[in-house]
Amino acid sequence: MASYTLPEFLAHAIAMEQEAADRYLELADMMEAHRNDPTSKVFREMHRYSVMHRDSIRARVGTTDLPKPRSWQYRWRTPPEVGGEEAFDYLLEPYNALKYARGNEMRSMKYYRAVAAEAEDPELRRLAEEFAGEEREHVLALDEWLGQTPRPSLSFADDPEMIEPV
Amino acid sequence: MASYTLPEFLAHAIAMEQEAADRYLELADMMEAHRNDPTSKVFREMHRYSVMHRDSIRARVGTTDLPKPRSWQYRWRTPPEVGGEEAFDYLLEPYNALKYARGNEMRSMKYYRAVAAEAEDPELRRLAEEFAGEEREHVLALDEWLGQTPRPSLSFADDPEMIEPV
Repeated sequence: MASYTLPEFLAHAIAMEQEAADRYLELADMMEAHRNDPTSKVFREMHRYSVMHRDSIRARVGTTDLPKPRSWQYRWRTPPEVGGEEAFDYLLEPYNALKYARGNEMRSMKYYRAVAAEAEDPELRRLAEEFAGEEREHVLALDEWLGQTPRPSLSFADDPEMIEPV
Repeated sequence: MASYTLPEFLAHAIAMEQEAADRYLELADMMEAHRNDPTSKVFREMHRYSVMHRDSIRARVGTTDLPKPRSWQYRWRTPPEVGGEEAFDYLLEPYNALKYARGNEMRSMKYYRAVAAEAEDPELRRLAEEFAGEEREHVLALDEWLGQTPRPSLSFADDPEMIEPV
């Protein structure tokens, strides 16, 4: 990973939180449309945390101009296919939606850890470690929810980030 | 794949063209920033085609209300990693940017073909076949450009859609 300046890092972090907020809102709406209220509520909470985190980073940045990250640097992965032709509907299973979110949170956590490990600026390192800790909390929250959710007959192929321990 | 109504299909097609337009513009800007003018020009052309296609579908839809597709049904895949830690910069190689675009165009072509194959409505089938043909043209254009572009030492791992013949 190229080493970051603080503004580059903050721009990435804001874009990542915005992406997470958008996806959690989408997942919450989908769950609600399928009358899965408990899972919808979890995703609304995750959405709220992402928005709060985004806003707290923005507040820190103030009026400084930040670079614009490229979409593939912060977008969530598209979900892997479960089986054959059903690619468009399988997220209707709450279990798979939770695993999908977990994979993306795990990827964010690893990103922040990698930035922290390579940071030369102590402030950058401190921030990256703090953010990695928040993502870790999200993974743990999703794991708890996964434990209470019935596993469907068709579940995701093993994307490591959906299953590996934090 | 679930069978589609015509409005569902048109909503998907518009979202896919919009996503392609956004990504091509981003790739064009990136190439320009790295003074790779020939490749930038290709991506600007691809952007223009995507915008034109989106607008022609919108014109056909008129004022009908369309459903809102979910992001993972039309978003481009995030690029696979080339090697280790450089995941954030490898698209700077024009060859890899072209292969990335090819993988996504190929996926769109397959989507349209699958819709055509399962369509019961003849108008839906005709449209899906027409759109598949346009995506095929895009893949062929990218192949021609790939043939003229030096292959870098680090290139994408073999994602089938980046290399399989149309």
